[in-house]
Amino acid sequence: MSSLLNYPDNFLWSGVHSGVKKTGKLDLGLVYSSFPSTVAAVFTENKLAAAPVIQAREKLQSSNKFHALLVNSGVANAATGPAGRRDNEKMIAESARLLNLSPDEVLSASTGYIGRRLALDKITGSLPEAVDSLDRTPDEFSRAIQTTDTSQKLVQIPVDGLDATICGVAKGSGMINPSMATMLAFLFLDWPVDAGWWQAELKSAADTSFNQITVDGDTSTNDTVMAWAADLPDRDRITASHPAAENISRALKRACAELAKAIVVDGEGATCTIEVRVTGAASSAEAEKVAAEIAGSPLVRTAFHARKPNWGRIYSAVGAARVELAPDKFSLSINGQTVFSDGRPQEFDKSLQVSLKEQDEHTVDVDLAVGNASARKLTCDLSQEYVRINVGYN
Amino acid sequence: MSSLLNYPDNFLWSGVHSGVKKTGKLDLGLVYSSFPSTVAAVFTENKLAAAPVIQAREKLQSSNKFHALLVNSGVANAATGPAGRRDNEKMIAESARLLNLSPDEVLSASTGYIGRRLALDKITGSLPEAVDSLDRTPDEFSRAIQTTDTSQKLVQIPVDGLDATICGVAKGSGMINPSMATMLAFLFLDWPVDAGWWQAELKSAADTSFNQITVDGDTSTNDTVMAWAADLPDRDRITASHPAAENISRALKRACAELAKAIVVDGEGATCTIEVRVTGAASSAEAEKVAAEIAGSPLVRTAFHARKPNWGRIYSAVGAARVELAPDKFSLSINGQTVFSDGRPQEFDKSLQVSLKEQDEHTVDVDLAVGNASARKLTCDLSQEYVRINVGYN
Repeated sequence: MSSLLNYPDNFLWSGVHSGVKKTGKLDLGLVYSSFPSTVAAVFTENKLAAAPVIQAREKLQSSNKFHALLVNSGVANAATGPAGRRDNEKMIAESARLLNLSPDEVLSASTGYIGRRLALDKITGSLPEAVDSLDRTPDEFSRAIQTTDTSQKLVQIPVDGLDATICGVAKGSGMINPSMATMLAFLFLDWPVDAGWWQAELKSAADTSFNQITVDGDTSTNDTVMAWAADLPDRDRITASHPAAENISRALKRACAELAKAIVVDGEGATCTIEVRVTGAASSAEAEKVAAEIAGSPLVRTAFHARKPNWGRIYSAVGAARVELAPDKFSLSINGQTVFSDGRPQEFDKSLQVSLKEQDEHTVDVDLAVGNASARKLTCDLSQEYVRINVGYN
Repeated sequence: MSSLLNYPDNFLWSGVHSGVKKTGKLDLGLVYSSFPSTVAAVFTENKLAAAPVIQAREKLQSSNKFHALLVNSGVANAATGPAGRRDNEKMIAESARLLNLSPDEVLSASTGYIGRRLALDKITGSLPEAVDSLDRTPDEFSRAIQTTDTSQKLVQIPVDGLDATICGVAKGSGMINPSMATMLAFLFLDWPVDAGWWQAELKSAADTSFNQITVDGDTSTNDTVMAWAADLPDRDRITASHPAAENISRALKRACAELAKAIVVDGEGATCTIEVRVTGAASSAEAEKVAAEIAGSPLVRTAFHARKPNWGRIYSAVGAARVELAPDKFSLSINGQTVFSDGRPQEFDKSLQVSLKEQDEHTVDVDLAVGNASARKLTCDLSQEYVRINVGYN
């Protein structure tokens, strides 16, 4: 995680306990953008998207300027039908009223149980407190949007050569809990941007960060990544051709990458991360398929939990992806040591076992030896603790 | 499991301990077909198929008449390169010599660790005992081909209206252990058949049985299903137009279905089965995708292990499959009780919780409400015991 010294100008934050979570933990977060912000967003591809996702998508089609973001945790407002959409509208309308905004200037997101209605009275009853406690530190907001997370996911990335900062906040304990509906990330920049460029940059940053992490391959009903960039006065708007565009792009990618990694590190029951890198594929889609097959394999992930060089499980996953490969040329390495190449197993020395036991970050490299396309996935090991959590969870 | 009273004529079986398995368990099985058998087979789609799979595929291209089947467990002979193929040839050659056959009349299959060489001296040293102990009971053969299985998988299906029997033998503790390379099933019929018809029937029976089971979605390097039909004299060869064809087809499908279910019931750490039935899909491929997404979801499977009606996880998996569905019309039922329909959650009574707690066989029905295609998957619940087994396994 990056240093938290300088929060971006313009944004005010709060997090309160409304009572939706029975544990007494914070469960309602609010962000207020003093100047309007240009908002870019990418949402879940789940066909049964939750009410806040459906409505945020609709709002972003008619405008990209917003003033506030309301996030509740504990209930996902998914699978709730028309009543759920009305609940979301009411929650937004009440926060808009308190902030002197139009409902069209407020976005929302939800995370938690699927199929339960929001406790609207609790949420609206707590909104005055959320508005009153808005201040310049995102700490309580970042905690209010969490569910099974065990670590705070908050990054602060200064933009090189510009007096601007990207603040990123995320929740998610892996993509491992879709009934908790699952991953939210919000990024905030104190500099005006061109809306089209900002959306393209967010899409690109998400593709190389959040879209490269997987724990169990489930895609939740609520996944949302939003990037807010404030229209502060006297600062020139960043477009693709602006000299600072490259630096903002780099800071955004870094913020997304750090948050995505933080989600995997905090994966339920996880003790280590596994970075899968596939090269030499005939196409990007085929590289992606192999990386996903390896990172998605419970057997590969339990082998890493055991910290054993059980490369046969990785080998089998490569073949199971059913893509073009050169059986006599492809190679497979773990933590930099080749375990299979030239059509046969290769001797590896003791240092592989040592690195598996002692390191918490591992790598798997596969070269399919048929083309030039590549892909990457980041996952975590699979432990009994993961099953315990998800069996026990109501 | 069906009764084991009548074994099919013509086949002789044995199972011995060669020493490949260090536990002292049987690890080498042999079947001898007194008359030549017409052999149909379907193999793994894994691109890195094991040596015995590669060589059996080759042999079946030039002939479909065979006299013997040799199966070893403990080592999969996968990821072993040219040396592994030579090992397989030697193992076949030695058994052919002892049985007075040509090597072209012998097929083999292997199951066990990936990436290890066969202990050829142990196997060839035990072949005389395997040949000497051939008799009319498949019991030892069925145990000799097992790995982590905890139950014997042996079925005996009489063919209606014909003095013939299909005997089926399988190994597999789910498709859950691809490093053990994983699922083998062999079927034996004491009646002559037309080779093309027999292959088509096996394909069709496998599609509605073995290809409908999943535990973790992994496809191993060694999966093999073979059907042997003996050319016994004075019996008319069965073709598609023969009056008994339908009855043999039905017996073959039943044998495959019983063995496939036995594999899921014996899934590592499993306490119950879950049958997922998808209807109303726009195409078979889309129905298949939804069924696979639900049956492959660790969260759905841990919910069934908890025996809780956590339908939000199933709902999310339906959306995650990203196929065409009618959000306001599709319905979702567990054990026959509707939990979601008409775009909103539905009340269900206490009997759902009771059936989840008390039954060991559960059903999930999803109607996507957009077309007429359907699909089915059979899986088991996911427990901490599954992870314990696969973390502990060397």
